[in-house]
Amino acid sequence: MRPPPTRLFISSIPSGNCYKVQLQLSLQGMRCPVTVMDILADPPETRRPEFLSRNPNGRVPVMQLTDGSNLAESNAILFYLSAGTPFFPRHPLLAAQTLQWMFFEQYNHEPNIAVLRFLYRWGNLEGQPAGTEARLRAGGLHALGVMEQHLTRNDYFVANRLTVADVALFAYTHIAPDAGFSLRYYPAICKWIDRVSSHDRFLKIED
Amino acid sequence: MRPPPTRLFISSIPSGNCYKVQLQLSLQGMRCPVTVMDILADPPETRRPEFLSRNPNGRVPVMQLTDGSNLAESNAILFYLSAGTPFFPRHPLLAAQTLQWMFFEQYNHEPNIAVLRFLYRWGNLEGQPAGTEARLRAGGLHALGVMEQHLTRNDYFVANRLTVADVALFAYTHIAPDAGFSLRYYPAICKWIDRVSSHDRFLKIED
Repeated sequence: MRPPPTRLFISSIPSGNCYKVQLQLSLQGMRCPVTVMDILADPPETRRPEFLSRNPNGRVPVMQLTDGSNLAESNAILFYLSAGTPFFPRHPLLAAQTLQWMFFEQYNHEPNIAVLRFLYRWGNLEGQPAGTEARLRAGGLHALGVMEQHLTRNDYFVANRLTVADVALFAYTHIAPDAGFSLRYYPAICKWIDRVSSHDRFLKIED
Repeated sequence: MRPPPTRLFISSIPSGNCYKVQLQLSLQGMRCPVTVMDILADPPETRRPEFLSRNPNGRVPVMQLTDGSNLAESNAILFYLSAGTPFFPRHPLLAAQTLQWMFFEQYNHEPNIAVLRFLYRWGNLEGQPAGTEARLRAGGLHALGVMEQHLTRNDYFVANRLTVADVALFAYTHIAPDAGFSLRYYPAICKWIDRVSSHDRFLKIED
């Protein structure tokens, strides 16, 4: 028996990593109280001892469970919520492919698109080392290209249906224009965004 | 029934991401033919059409299976190999915690320690934008600090036994000195490295 979530700790600015957990909760018809952490405070609330005892890595989202444990890393939380449901395939190869796309998201997609979006909207882009924007832009374009190629031949990332691989990638893709990425060059991604957004119990990101 | 691996594509330079798959195969007593891809060629063999048809992201490791499919992302491959064995806990919370550390590895650890190691040994560190080394160094020290704190109270990352979370983190941690990180400031990590290395069927990285 899995302990259910009792509280979700999220960021005070609209974060795709936090949103993806809220979207998955909504898709599964689950509700969970939320605590908003001020990550722009000095020091950020996520870097203070009380929060570090939940996640020594000092990052949100964190999901607290009834047994008192705390789970970090957005995609690990998605796995926890979805395991045993149609959102996480049971077949070993499809399960591994779901995780393949989720690791791709955290390695090739988020560190470029989400970081550039943060610098555009809340950070100090001009204060970054020379070449930072170009490096993040190139990485983000590469990630979007890989996604476009896959979605040209597939409606979803894995198993021809909505899984947590889609939820993980949807989070920062649909708000990539915040970071100056134009999605009109990616028609398959645009159709996939419409497809994901039209699901029952879809939840919009708060902005 | 899971298709067994028929071939593993790895890098021509000693890569922790490729090594972790070879280590896991060894721990499970499995063997698999290897194809070495020249990633320092121009263009790298991993960015040529034949390989991109296996992994459009252009990265190794890639594991080919008997059904003809190809699985990418080192940690997704570890999941595939270990699912159903003691190396991947069956309990949902422990399974999610295993993945939590594997996502931490790919987000906070590898992009700092592995990238700095590459620049030290094969890349052009001097040619990087100002501040690159300092940024990667700070990120790597943070990741090692989070690991040290956990290992001060635990022999392994999850479930008090060797899992793929340890294998994933071991790969670039034990060779962090290649990137100028001194492990003598991390006594709990050093003991954990000895603990992992002493397992039956442990495999050393080739260098």
